[in-house]
Amino acid sequence: MDEVARIASIRALLHRDRDDVVVGIGDDAAVLARSESAQVLSVDVQVEGVHFRRAWLGYEDLGHRAYHAAASDLAAMGAAPHAALLSLILPAYVSDEDLDALVQGIGAAADDVGAPVVGGNLARGGELSITTTVIGETSGAGIGRGGASPGEGVYVTGTIGGAALGLAALDAEQGGDARFAPFVACFWRPAAQIVIGQRLVGVATAAADISDGLVADLGHVCHASSVGARIRADLLPTPEGFEEAAHVLGRDPTRLALAGGEDFQLVFTAPVSTTADELATLVGEITPEPGVVCLGAGGEPLPGDYRGFDHF
Amino acid sequence: MDEVARIASIRALLHRDRDDVVVGIGDDAAVLARSESAQVLSVDVQVEGVHFRRAWLGYEDLGHRAYHAAASDLAAMGAAPHAALLSLILPAYVSDEDLDALVQGIGAAADDVGAPVVGGNLARGGELSITTTVIGETSGAGIGRGGASPGEGVYVTGTIGGAALGLAALDAEQGGDARFAPFVACFWRPAAQIVIGQRLVGVATAAADISDGLVADLGHVCHASSVGARIRADLLPTPEGFEEAAHVLGRDPTRLALAGGEDFQLVFTAPVSTTADELATLVGEITPEPGVVCLGAGGEPLPGDYRGFDHF
Repeated sequence: MDEVARIASIRALLHRDRDDVVVGIGDDAAVLARSESAQVLSVDVQVEGVHFRRAWLGYEDLGHRAYHAAASDLAAMGAAPHAALLSLILPAYVSDEDLDALVQGIGAAADDVGAPVVGGNLARGGELSITTTVIGETSGAGIGRGGASPGEGVYVTGTIGGAALGLAALDAEQGGDARFAPFVACFWRPAAQIVIGQRLVGVATAAADISDGLVADLGHVCHASSVGARIRADLLPTPEGFEEAAHVLGRDPTRLALAGGEDFQLVFTAPVSTTADELATLVGEITPEPGVVCLGAGGEPLPGDYRGFDHF
Repeated sequence: MDEVARIASIRALLHRDRDDVVVGIGDDAAVLARSESAQVLSVDVQVEGVHFRRAWLGYEDLGHRAYHAAASDLAAMGAAPHAALLSLILPAYVSDEDLDALVQGIGAAADDVGAPVVGGNLARGGELSITTTVIGETSGAGIGRGGASPGEGVYVTGTIGGAALGLAALDAEQGGDARFAPFVACFWRPAAQIVIGQRLVGVATAAADISDGLVADLGHVCHASSVGARIRADLLPTPEGFEEAAHVLGRDPTRLALAGGEDFQLVFTAPVSTTADELATLVGEITPEPGVVCLGAGGEPLPGDYRGFDHF
């Protein structure tokens, strides 16, 4: 298939009829007509060998995951996504069928989020990568990272650690073991927390998505807010059966939950309140001293470094 | 340098004070406040070994070129860019100084175009790539590819072929020869035709930027418009001294001008008029029959295939 045919095939899979898409996939650029509040934009990339290995997940899961990972940054701003651009670098080994599966996963994720792909770019290269730009809207400045204050609570949405455990199982070539299946699914099919993100506007003082690990991403919030945080490892919301499965695999569940990213849940700060409690789990508090300190159930500092993933 | 330090360093180089940038580089996503007409979005990537070789140009030129190549798609829509996102995949051999130079080139290009970088992403990888998303505004649907009609003129802005000749000189390791210097500069420092693009709104019936070569990109316009085109090779606007320099290098100047992209000029269609003549050079006409036919000075069809670059 040549480039024009590939784009036509991708368009057939990704086009969605929407009144606000004046020009969609296939022109020099996409044109959107929106009644605007503030535009919110983000870009994220998944690179083979860095963010994933092909042995770990099929092309459809890969596409789905890449899209949700990108949309997750808009969730962390409390924004409503309305469109996306897809830029693919494709090595020669990616067949037309592989590409279709990848694009189908992306299209399904775009439907989940309600933000269709309206354009993009195709290029050859030696290393498979999927770059997704997501654009949306928010009222005001959205929820930044710089608004946390001492005394506020630290909250985590959903459950964390499951995707890191699933990834560990895949890495140990035990992804097929039924005991790890729910956690492998957390890795394969994360969901950007778009709905809850928008409910956090007016509640959260700062937020980030947990893509690099709770301690690392909370660290970014603390750095931007010139504060620190204390979190209690025993309060972390983990999936059912998580501890037992981690032990079966010989992994430390506390480390997976503190340092593993990949679930794409949100960490946010807010004055402790019933509203915040209804949306997420209270796991700690903001302190005036810089740094993120992890405590055990008795309040004792945990040994070790849980800072998670740094890209460099 | 770790990721946080790299982003801080990039922010220092790329941040521009603008009232419409509510949240800029460093948060989960950028937030822009704009009084909107229609939003225009595009993404482009430059991949090492595919779009460039590092021996061909320094990091600053590379950044400058990558940004203009992306902005060129907005020029082809008649849009006014207002912001950009930068997503970099960085192999370990890219030093902090290399990255600074790359980012400085991008910042200078963003200043040229008037659309600052407001966010982005950094990732490790084995293959250097620069993905630039550009967002802007246009009235209505901008200038698409599908509006050309038989009898209209085919126009080319500026001069073409220079960048392809410069690239050929670099590829032949003769980039240092002073006779090729102006053409090497065309390759190193192309400029997106943003100003002329906006002047084409209401004049052009269809437009595209010439990134893959005139015949290829005019072919995309013809395909989208269900028409064809005849172009006259002797009418193509080429830079001063182009033919002689091409002959010195043993290259066919007609082929370079017809099939070479990289200048990032625009091809557009419009009823022949003084206004169109003032903006660009008339090089041919739209026909009802599909396909792009290249003619010599006497109206004879040129032999050969000038379709230029297909990524697959």
